[in-house]
Amino acid sequence: MKYTVYLSGEIHSDWREKIKNATQEHNLPIEILTPNTDHDSSDECGAGILGAEEKPFWKDHKAAKLNSIRHMTALNRADIVIVRFGEKYKQWNAAFDAGIATALGKSLIVEHAKELTHPLKEVDAAAMAVAENTEQVIEILRYLCQDY
Amino acid sequence: MKYTVYLSGEIHSDWREKIKNATQEHNLPIEILTPNTDHDSSDECGAGILGAEEKPFWKDHKAAKLNSIRHMTALNRADIVIVRFGEKYKQWNAAFDAGIATALGKSLIVEHAKELTHPLKEVDAAAMAVAENTEQVIEILRYLCQDY
Amino acid sequence: MKYTVYLSGEIHSDWREKIKNATQEHNLPIEILTPNTDHDSSDECGAGILGAEEKPFWKDHKAAKLNSIRHMTALNRADIVIVRFGEKYKQWNAAFDAGIATALGKSLIVEHAKELTHPLKEVDAAAMAVAENTEQVIEILRYLCQDY
Amino acid sequence: MKYTVYLSGEIHSDWREKIKNATQEHNLPIEILTPNTDHDSSDECGAGILGAEEKPFWKDHKAAKLNSIRHMTALNRADIVIVRFGEKYKQWNAAFDAGIATALGKSLIVEHAKELTHPLKEVDAAAMAVAENTEQVIEILRYLCQDY
Amino acid sequence: MKYTVYLSGEIHSDWREKIKNATQEHNLPIEILTPNTDHDSSDECGAGILGAEEKPFWKDHKAAKLNSIRHMTALNRADIVIVRFGEKYKQWNAAFDAGIATALGKSLIVEHAKELTHPLKEVDAAAMAVAENTEQVIEILRYLCQDY
Amino acid sequence: MKYTVYLSGEIHSDWREKIKNATQEHNLPIEILTPNTDHDSSDECGAGILGAEEKPFWKDHKAAKLNSIRHMTALNRADIVIVRFGEKYKQWNAAFDAGIATALGKSLIVEHAKELTHPLKEVDAAAMAVAENTEQVIEILRYLCQDY
Amino acid sequence: MKYTVYLSGEIHSDWREKIKNATQEHNLPIEILTPNTDHDSSDECGAGILGAEEKPFWKDHKAAKLNSIRHMTALNRADIVIVRFGEKYKQWNAAFDAGIATALGKSLIVEHAKELTHPLKEVDAAAMAVAENTEQVIEILRYLCQDY
Amino acid sequence: MKYTVYLSGEIHSDWREKIKNATQEHNLPIEILTPNTDHDSSDECGAGILGAEEKPFWKDHKAAKLNSIRHMTALNRADIVIVRFGEKYKQWNAAFDAGIATALGKSLIVEHAKELTHPLKEVDAAAMAVAENTEQVIEILRYLCQDY
Repeated sequence: MKYTVYLSGEIHSDWREKIKNATQEHNLPIEILTPNTDHDSSDECGAGILGAEEKPFWKDHKAAKLNSIRHMTALNRADIVIVRFGEKYKQWNAAFDAGIATALGKSLIVEHAKELTHPLKEVDAAAMAVAENTEQVIEILRYLCQDY
Repeated sequence: MKYTVYLSGEIHSDWREKIKNATQEHNLPIEILTPNTDHDSSDECGAGILGAEEKPFWKDHKAAKLNSIRHMTALNRADIVIVRFGEKYKQWNAAFDAGIATALGKSLIVEHAKELTHPLKEVDAAAMAVAENTEQVIEILRYLCQDY
Repeated sequence: MKYTVYLSGEIHSDWREKIKNATQEHNLPIEILTPNTDHDSSDECGAGILGAEEKPFWKDHKAAKLNSIRHMTALNRADIVIVRFGEKYKQWNAAFDAGIATALGKSLIVEHAKELTHPLKEVDAAAMAVAENTEQVIEILRYLCQDY
Repeated sequence: MKYTVYLSGEIHSDWREKIKNATQEHNLPIEILTPNTDHDSSDECGAGILGAEEKPFWKDHKAAKLNSIRHMTALNRADIVIVRFGEKYKQWNAAFDAGIATALGKSLIVEHAKELTHPLKEVDAAAMAVAENTEQVIEILRYLCQDY
Repeated sequence: MKYTVYLSGEIHSDWREKIKNATQEHNLPIEILTPNTDHDSSDECGAGILGAEEKPFWKDHKAAKLNSIRHMTALNRADIVIVRFGEKYKQWNAAFDAGIATALGKSLIVEHAKELTHPLKEVDAAAMAVAENTEQVIEILRYLCQDY
Repeated sequence: MKYTVYLSGEIHSDWREKIKNATQEHNLPIEILTPNTDHDSSDECGAGILGAEEKPFWKDHKAAKLNSIRHMTALNRADIVIVRFGEKYKQWNAAFDAGIATALGKSLIVEHAKELTHPLKEVDAAAMAVAENTEQVIEILRYLCQDY
Repeated sequence: MKYTVYLSGEIHSDWREKIKNATQEHNLPIEILTPNTDHDSSDECGAGILGAEEKPFWKDHKAAKLNSIRHMTALNRADIVIVRFGEKYKQWNAAFDAGIATALGKSLIVEHAKELTHPLKEVDAAAMAVAENTEQVIEILRYLCQDY
Repeated sequence: MKYTVYLSGEIHSDWREKIKNATQEHNLPIEILTPNTDHDSSDECGAGILGAEEKPFWKDHKAAKLNSIRHMTALNRADIVIVRFGEKYKQWNAAFDAGIATALGKSLIVEHAKELTHPLKEVDAAAMAVAENTEQVIEILRYLCQDY
């Protein structure tokens, strides 16, 4: 069975590459959607395309809105939304995406280290699976793609 | 004009009391909904009512699910969802609520200190107002409640 | 905080009375909705009002459709749907109601004895709380109704 | 006319194979979706992929949630949901799927032996067809696929 | 249990009065909504308020659109939509209302004489009850309003 | 621009063939969906596949429900729903389909002779075009399919 | 029959007062919602409450977003949305509100002078009534509120 | 990542051609949908196909409704709706489309000259990007289509 999967959340490790590689290696019928994973271009896109801003707030605002076009398209199109929380940064955008996915009725898979269990309990409670590493996420996708 | 308002987010300062007091003082036609703001009872409710768990993950899970009944009822009932982000803690539940509010088409108001602008840019981008303090939030509510 | 609660499921014990009594005793701001709990009138309503049927299938069909008007109105109106599974009978209508509640985005609370865990795992997985007895359900409602 | 069909319900007989074979034999333009029909792997997937649990409740919980990703994707994608009820087991998951299908506005076809009419009356009342055997289900699909 | 009920369909007999009287007599907690039952004012409202039209098509068009404001408000607000088909006239508006009610997920009750069974089979198939007279409709409402 | 079009309504003239022929002749990028246009098989399908019924009501009921699977799939999939009303028969199913199409937000095109204007005014009021003959419907489709 | 009515659009004449007066005079069961009709405070609210902006774009942005909280709450709550287009100004916000009302399935009434017919044809095409003056709008409301 | 994009709004300059050319030149995976951009045929389609009208109102009405079939299909199908406001004409249809796009949850991009900022502030407030020229719009599309 095929799926469209959106890989949201943390962009400072190579977890998306691992999933893409596994998808190819195991020939999984999965269409993968991602955010812009190039941190700099993601931060600069608004000012770069639509004009510079003096206040950091508006510079961030223009970038975040531009990126939301990609995010909302992916969230609406996905069957499964996978959100990884890393150890660093606030990552509120990851929890925000998880909230949108939940309200849209998408199946949510969350990946995070055990240490983050308590602050992520509300997100985990809405998830269909809570993985501790990307290998588990890949196993889940392999399991879900099997035909019977 | 009357509104139903859900005050989500940070529970370690008295911002909800300020809003409630202002609502009473100015006689605003606002129905206020809140999460459980007693941190301990919020963490313990699942194990306390439904039975203890050895693993912290499941203890948190039971509590978070129980509390989600209140949160989802409030999010569905509200016209306006106000989310405050404080300086401490991960507060992923606050960003998660903001995501749900956005996807449900609720009007989102976010309050946070200027320093949090960059990590909150995706949440701010979906908000109808970004306030720097609770006084501004109160001014917004007073403004919105006026009759013409 | 107030709630509208639909008490679906098993009708052969007095669990609804316990909840109603507790609601009154603790003065909980809960509007309680119920199915027809009189088994005979529930089975006979279709043939009784709209005319007898020779085939049991159509007799049941007319009754089930008539009762669905009450069920669907209650399911749509409720914030919380509580479904109790007893030890006897197939109770497919209870699981059916739980499925509707889930798809409508209602908060689901399930009550059943521990022995039924395995066959009810799909229903439990969609629930915000799984209680083992009505006393726990009442504790949940008391907890959720608290004001902060 | 083509359809996407989800075959939910009982997994202890070969009814899905019969439908798949008929689809091929008659060249019906039907995309068939199924749950995991391997009972053991379905029960073990949660603990197997995401780690063992001491309590049977949580083992079942993890498996049921993982499988719900497949079920919900199939239920959302399907035009028609076919649910078969067998003679054995509680099969609450089948009635639960039927409830979700109904609330999502999918066309529901139910198959069950005559003896199960009374306990299944609420599910049957929401169905567009109630078949007594898989041959009838196949005839329905052949009829629906005709072009005019 | 209380209901909001929209009485759509035929306006040339006193069936709505019978239901209103029974509601009062039995003190049923039902809010009744109706279309404009004054045939002349219903036909003339568009031209009368918004200006005459030479072509009958546009005269009818203006009236039908104006009346649709009332109809759509009632259909959206109702829990139950009751549609009566009489012996005379085309009554396509009644079947049209039944279609809207069905797609909005409202519980549909249809009343018509036995002779109209074949041409009304598609409407009946979507109904939760098919009554042959207004007395049966009243019995249904009395049954549904009972408290347990 | 391409469209999916459902041709609902009257099945006693060759209007669907005219539209299909024009679609081919002008190479229009339109996917055409139709109901079962073979009157006899449409009436007999329920009893034929699922077993005979003594009462005409239930025979009609089984057929109408079976056919509704095709109708609802087509109504949900269509961008445009075209409903033709002929001179004969009650055709309540056509008005019923028009109501569903309207509530689902589909673009409705109605075709009928001028004489039917008054009884069809509510349906016409919800339509995006009211044609007097199939040639006009074809012109509309040709117009809508043009690329710019 | 009662209605909730949102009076959107032009704020430079006294048309809302006329409707409010008529509502009181004729004792119509209508709840009236309005935007902020004080042009200055509407333009200044964002900068006034949330801080000044150098660029006019962001000053307007903050005000427009703040006001959208009121507009969206009113549009979601209304049964009927009435939009008046005056002779002056661009009034794109009025057409924007009409678009939202249409997509939300609200009944739209438009009021404008005959001279504006051509540029408003798309908005008029989605309206249930197109009035040329406020007196006609009042007549419509009186007509819709009648009980039968 | 691929997108479906609807280019709504002004039809008196060659902005759509610029976007189409850029899409081809840069090989962007974008499906472009447009309204009828031939002003004359757009105005005449209703009377031309469905018969002449004496009153300009009804001539416009028939054309606008016919064109709405194309517009609503495109608005429902699009991931991104781009609306350009030119210097001339009222362009209420452009703001109306923007309102529909917003209520349907589509990502809105607005293009207009700086001078139109104040009257377009409500539309801009709902947009994910406000561009001052078509070159910026093209840069946005190139940015959004990148794969990571």
